[in-house]
Amino acid sequence: MAVLHYTLDFKLRAPADVSATVRGLQSIFQEQEMTENVHDSEGQGYLATFVGKNGRFAILRMHSHGLVTFDLQCLEGDDVVQVDNLLNALEKKLKALLDGNIQRIKRLPALIRGSDVDRYWPTADGRLMEYDIDEVVYEKESAYQNIKILHSLQFGNMLILNGDVNLAESDLPYTQAIMGSGKEHYAGKEILILGGGDGGILHEAVKLKPKMITMILVQDCVPVLKKFAEQGRTFDYVINDLTAVPISTAPEEDSTWEFLRLILDLSIRVLRPSGKYFTQGNCANLTDALSEYEKLLGRLSCKVDFSKEVVCVPSYMELYPF
Amino acid sequence: MAVLHYTLDFKLRAPADVSATVRGLQSIFQEQEMTENVHDSEGQGYLATFVGKNGRFAILRMHSHGLVTFDLQCLEGDDVVQVDNLLNALEKKLKALLDGNIQRIKRLPALIRGSDVDRYWPTADGRLMEYDIDEVVYEKESAYQNIKILHSLQFGNMLILNGDVNLAESDLPYTQAIMGSGKEHYAGKEILILGGGDGGILHEAVKLKPKMITMILVQDCVPVLKKFAEQGRTFDYVINDLTAVPISTAPEEDSTWEFLRLILDLSIRVLRPSGKYFTQGNCANLTDALSEYEKLLGRLSCKVDFSKEVVCVPSYMELYPF
Repeated sequence: MAVLHYTLDFKLRAPADVSATVRGLQSIFQEQEMTENVHDSEGQGYLATFVGKNGRFAILRMHSHGLVTFDLQCLEGDDVVQVDNLLNALEKKLKALLDGNIQRIKRLPALIRGSDVDRYWPTADGRLMEYDIDEVVYEKESAYQNIKILHSLQFGNMLILNGDVNLAESDLPYTQAIMGSGKEHYAGKEILILGGGDGGILHEAVKLKPKMITMILVQDCVPVLKKFAEQGRTFDYVINDLTAVPISTAPEEDSTWEFLRLILDLSIRVLRPSGKYFTQGNCANLTDALSEYEKLLGRLSCKVDFSKEVVCVPSYMELYPF
Repeated sequence: MAVLHYTLDFKLRAPADVSATVRGLQSIFQEQEMTENVHDSEGQGYLATFVGKNGRFAILRMHSHGLVTFDLQCLEGDDVVQVDNLLNALEKKLKALLDGNIQRIKRLPALIRGSDVDRYWPTADGRLMEYDIDEVVYEKESAYQNIKILHSLQFGNMLILNGDVNLAESDLPYTQAIMGSGKEHYAGKEILILGGGDGGILHEAVKLKPKMITMILVQDCVPVLKKFAEQGRTFDYVINDLTAVPISTAPEEDSTWEFLRLILDLSIRVLRPSGKYFTQGNCANLTDALSEYEKLLGRLSCKVDFSKEVVCVPSYMELYPF
């Protein structure tokens, strides 16, 4: 059973009269038969909590710098009309009590906490996103990672690896972008796919009648690339769909950066001189990491040109460079 | 000054031993010099609150159905490392105490409450979305609506009317879709734009060398359309960018539906027989409202054919039919 967590915030232009406001709200909590507890806030404004029936719990804070925050936690299955009425009554009363002093009123959609279907999957740059997920299709803790397939009403089935949205049925723009956005001629060409385990690239590439697609299945691609390089085996296209650019350039990410460098160097060795290498970046907002990656491209064993394209991948809810 | 609201939830397979868990966590709160208050939860599990220094306030609930929720509210400018350490210590300890009984641990990005720049703009179907907004460029309460221009790192400037994301600099796909996605030949044609006050459609349409673009500026388009109909003035294209399909089909939305019907009927009257009418729908998840709109199209004064296209408009963070 989930907990619904409602918030209602009043941002004020100036600090409000605490005792008048608190007195004005009292009847609302009394009507709801909520037991009040005023806390010693150690000089940080007014702080009261309220325990109600059916597990309802509320917090009212009036910060001395001019912000009123209200929280209401209810159990899933609680009477929605009653809960709505409480929030409406409180908003109306606070509007009247704080009239002329209100800069902004904000009432967010309730946070759904502990539900069977987890709807919150933050962006790569750490912003809160609520998806329209209605079903857990598959979940497994594999030897390598946590694997989930969740169903989104808009995006269809979504593959989520270690909490990171990988690809959804809506995300053909991802696959098109990592293949060069329709500007390449794959017919008769040799393609090497690194990663791409969801099958999206393979599915699109076969339609374009290439001579051969080589896809390295569930194994470490590094020894395979090394073998290809030693054998002098080359490709017209290398499509690296292994991993995004690391989120940060902090030292603890060094091994991932090292891995990226290694893959890039080996890929260049198996590319024909006229060949092309395609890969994903990461969320457009991770500018430090993305420019670090671009610097890397200037330090490869041979000189390369590169260009980038920023794409809207539906299920990512953020712009994504390729 | 904003309040940062952190949450940390443990969804359990079975109810946990309350007293052992609470005892196990005690040292963490003591180290943080937080004053504990155990509340009578009226039989709904364990409920304690903690007041700490600098305005910190925490809530620990152990629900009897097997869910542990933890909330921590801090003032903006609080020591981030200390706050992180508290959350990390708590997560680690709870992991140890509840070992073997954990179905899911969820720690969301902190809710930022009452900040100068409001980053939360829910989708049309009521889901919580945090935008990467870093600046309020413009804000005005006009005689008609609340007008905001906010700057998003990814999407550029965003126009928000009455809390509803209208259009951002990233949203050329919106304008392209409402103009027929590049499949129309506007050269030499007569175009009527209803709404479109952000100028996006006009900006794209003039590039296509139409004979004439008529755009009804800040006024009610109904009398203008009626006058055109009476005069027998007709157009090759009517592009209705006035308002989205109402979110619900509930009675209180009746006047908006009536308005949509009226606009549709008048538009058909000023369209040439070979003419086309383009408009936006609303969030793809509002299936009831969208099919209500499609039904409307079958009840117009003359028979019409229609088709729809679902587009990813970057700043909407939801799929959108046109």
